[in-house]
Amino acid sequence: MSADTRFQQATAYLGYTFDGDLKVGGDYVPLLRDGDVIYISGQIPRVENTVVVTGRVGAEVSLGQAQLAAKVCAMRALALLQRELGSLDKLRRVLRISVYIQSAADFTQQSEVSDGASALLHEVLGEAGRHTRTSVGVYHLPKNASVELDMVVSVAG
Amino acid sequence: MSADTRFQQATAYLGYTFDGDLKVGGDYVPLLRDGDVIYISGQIPRVENTVVVTGRVGAEVSLGQAQLAAKVCAMRALALLQRELGSLDKLRRVLRISVYIQSAADFTQQSEVSDGASALLHEVLGEAGRHTRTSVGVYHLPKNASVELDMVVSVAG
Amino acid sequence: MSADTRFQQATAYLGYTFDGDLKVGGDYVPLLRDGDVIYISGQIPRVENTVVVTGRVGAEVSLGQAQLAAKVCAMRALALLQRELGSLDKLRRVLRISVYIQSAADFTQQSEVSDGASALLHEVLGEAGRHTRTSVGVYHLPKNASVELDMVVSVAG
Repeated sequence: MSADTRFQQATAYLGYTFDGDLKVGGDYVPLLRDGDVIYISGQIPRVENTVVVTGRVGAEVSLGQAQLAAKVCAMRALALLQRELGSLDKLRRVLRISVYIQSAADFTQQSEVSDGASALLHEVLGEAGRHTRTSVGVYHLPKNASVELDMVVSVAG
Repeated sequence: MSADTRFQQATAYLGYTFDGDLKVGGDYVPLLRDGDVIYISGQIPRVENTVVVTGRVGAEVSLGQAQLAAKVCAMRALALLQRELGSLDKLRRVLRISVYIQSAADFTQQSEVSDGASALLHEVLGEAGRHTRTSVGVYHLPKNASVELDMVVSVAG
Repeated sequence: MSADTRFQQATAYLGYTFDGDLKVGGDYVPLLRDGDVIYISGQIPRVENTVVVTGRVGAEVSLGQAQLAAKVCAMRALALLQRELGSLDKLRRVLRISVYIQSAADFTQQSEVSDGASALLHEVLGEAGRHTRTSVGVYHLPKNASVELDMVVSVAG
């Protein structure tokens, strides 16, 4: 089964669509290729015009909701890559993801939130989706998003 | 018009000079080249010996002041690149900027702060200045700086 | 003297061992090589099963303890690189470190915390250990760790 089929299945499972405009919030680009490396801008869990998970994780947002938010961020990154490359099968490796979690004062399960994104990337991309990762709990994210995720990937030369 | 001329114009417009020592705050280097890629250390809005914008954005620091801080960080990065390369015209592309904003508890306009830096890079460097970006609101920055920005760029091989 | 010998000396000096399992906290990899570049996942100051420095720096954690935490994070990264490469002498350059410090509300010495890691890298690796750096004070880190550090390095082709 191709990564694109698995991406489609993940879309159906999550119940969100990533076919529309994947807009950025300012004067920058969503994705940029330099040789065999592609940089992807920080993604928040926006679906069309709505940020679907907002608020502090550990307070008004549960661990499960935050994991969903991390998955939506990762799906947006994959949708951007699919448009750029034509197929996700051209992706060689996800090199790095950085996951920022808007955290409540006493919340320490940032790694568990990021696991939502990591599991999804592994599932959709197979071995190519296994990455290095940094997870940090931050004070505030744009648009009051609960999670933000950026990515660096390599593609076949 | 060359990027260096536009850099000079931006310097005049901001009313700050970046001719002096662009010091780092510890045992590390401001900039490092690896092949065609240059990494730039996190820049705070320091001009000579003074951090010109300090405090929490959304509380004692306005959006406009924070955008100015982001511009000063970006100008420092450009000044470092100009010294390294001789001319900013040798820069091929700004690949990534990460912008950290020392935020008040209810401040969610981190993207708008980063737009200060993004617009400046686009203006000075043209298409080469259009980049991927991650903006996060953090709890504290070194020296109580309102904004910190780091960068990865590519240069002609 | 080889970098590996200096690494061994630093281990003895710190009084911790990095011979055991250097586990990651989720479905990701600790380290990943792409051509001549190696990405290392965010390291917290874990020694075997214990995070040895936890809490907010500037409140229950002193600057000195936080610098120790930063050193332990850097040693974990070096231990991972040594296992991957066989010898730390194969490392060409530490390109970037990002240091996240779980900070108290009024703590602004993030750079001084990171200096713990920077000095250690310089000491163990010599010139190859001089890097670019970004230090930010964050609201929360996984497992209540006081410091987290990630790294990008280059190796001989």
